[in-house]
Amino acid sequence: MPVPFADRLAQAVRRKRTPLVVGLDPRLEMLPAELALAAPSNPQQVSAVYERFCCQVIELVAPLVPAVKPQVAFFERWGPPGLEALAGVIRHARQAGLLVLVDAKRGDIGSTAVAYAQAYLGPQAPWPGDALTVNPYLGPDTLEPFLSLAAEQGRGVFVLVKTSNRQSGAFQDLPAEVPLHEHVAAFVERQAAQTTGGCGYGAVGAVVGATHPQQLARLRKLMPHAWFLVPGLGAQGATAADVAAAFDPRGLGAVVNSSRGIIYAWHQEAYAHLGDKQWQEAVQQAARDTIEQLRRHTPAGAL
Amino acid sequence: MPVPFADRLAQAVRRKRTPLVVGLDPRLEMLPAELALAAPSNPQQVSAVYERFCCQVIELVAPLVPAVKPQVAFFERWGPPGLEALAGVIRHARQAGLLVLVDAKRGDIGSTAVAYAQAYLGPQAPWPGDALTVNPYLGPDTLEPFLSLAAEQGRGVFVLVKTSNRQSGAFQDLPAEVPLHEHVAAFVERQAAQTTGGCGYGAVGAVVGATHPQQLARLRKLMPHAWFLVPGLGAQGATAADVAAAFDPRGLGAVVNSSRGIIYAWHQEAYAHLGDKQWQEAVQQAARDTIEQLRRHTPAGAL
Repeated sequence: MPVPFADRLAQAVRRKRTPLVVGLDPRLEMLPAELALAAPSNPQQVSAVYERFCCQVIELVAPLVPAVKPQVAFFERWGPPGLEALAGVIRHARQAGLLVLVDAKRGDIGSTAVAYAQAYLGPQAPWPGDALTVNPYLGPDTLEPFLSLAAEQGRGVFVLVKTSNRQSGAFQDLPAEVPLHEHVAAFVERQAAQTTGGCGYGAVGAVVGATHPQQLARLRKLMPHAWFLVPGLGAQGATAADVAAAFDPRGLGAVVNSSRGIIYAWHQEAYAHLGDKQWQEAVQQAARDTIEQLRRHTPAGAL
Repeated sequence: MPVPFADRLAQAVRRKRTPLVVGLDPRLEMLPAELALAAPSNPQQVSAVYERFCCQVIELVAPLVPAVKPQVAFFERWGPPGLEALAGVIRHARQAGLLVLVDAKRGDIGSTAVAYAQAYLGPQAPWPGDALTVNPYLGPDTLEPFLSLAAEQGRGVFVLVKTSNRQSGAFQDLPAEVPLHEHVAAFVERQAAQTTGGCGYGAVGAVVGATHPQQLARLRKLMPHAWFLVPGLGAQGATAADVAAAFDPRGLGAVVNSSRGIIYAWHQEAYAHLGDKQWQEAVQQAARDTIEQLRRHTPAGAL
């Protein structure tokens, strides 16, 4: 039996003493000047630059954080060459000793979900993630193929429960006896409790946005056995204090993602003095500062 | 301004006199013997065979139906070569004069949704669909980038409203004042009504499973301006009579997908006499029979 994902994540968080995950969102208009393309429309060239940039970011943050979260959409937008680059980025991150949380938000009916699960969680997955984000709208039977393959392979799944975007409440907070996202949470908790490893958490986690702190606190109580993947820190407006409720007293139970706030740090006022030419320093400094804020304002200080 | 997707779909349905869409779901274990691989584990070989099979199916059904629906998951499962094959299949279908409804069920927060939209609906899309299926769970603001790019490009979007799988009700039917999927339907109808073309339907449609006929009838009333993409016919158990309520009296307003029931027809008892060696005849005969059933049992007879 492979070591369960939940335990590998706990181990990695403890080793790096931080729950910070760096999101890999390559965007043409944000790249440092040394990687900028004169005519950024050739998918091969763009993909090569994306891979180079993400691999450099990986090397900068690998000593500091337990995991990276590549966002598939930015690679997929450039077609097959982009997805070749994604495979290279995932490979590089694994070689650097990082866990890889693939953010693809996939979901489909049973027999089709099997194919998506194989692509990211299978033994011969072209994009092998330690975990994958999945969308619950279609129903529990459509999540099952992801969950069972993940458990079998010692990999994990993060189910979208409460997302970080502005209008996430429109459907997710639908006021019924309990709101929709709490139904999804109940499903996640049942599945997580059935797959609990030594660290006390299961193979099925939840994506819970940092931008809704009160719901975050309630969802923590509703899903005591689920790792949380918390997006929204930094560019989306949430602070370290906003995510405090996601952790257990040991500083475990949640990993917190920041993408733009770290990988494009030199575009921000706080790091602008480093400038485009020292973008690498800006990335590392922003990662260190974010780690420090999480230590100071959350139970991650106990790590 | 490009011709709106809704009108192009109406025109194609009228020209072929059927709302039948053929789903392209390549599966190794179902391919005809002449395309079977000895050791089906090499992604390049599998992808080449998938492309060959799907292109042959396209040629068989192009004279009969208005559109095909490639299921991205089956291609994605094999990595970048699979997605190269998907691009080839889409190209082939367009050259054969078919509309292409790309079934990818994508969805993500705003800035990321833009990247997915570009991949399937943009002017330089690597996988150019006439329409794309999208997942509403994250909320209206996350659908907006798909809708606006689609409208601008004369392309369309089908939002998952009520899916065909067994447990689709677990979240979608959440009993509130109105169930979740009806909230999604209300959103779809508003968007569709704002983008109505000459045919009376808008650029935003709805995926509504054929396996829940009563909900289908109610959703038709709630979304009078939305084209329906109706899966579930054939292998998933729904009959032509089950989908009758999806149409307007002109026979427009819905396209009905069948995948396995057509592209693997020779595996079924009704066509087994044709056998593996005459699989092409079985595919065409199954398409013709399904078209005939839809004509007899639904307003598609008015086409």
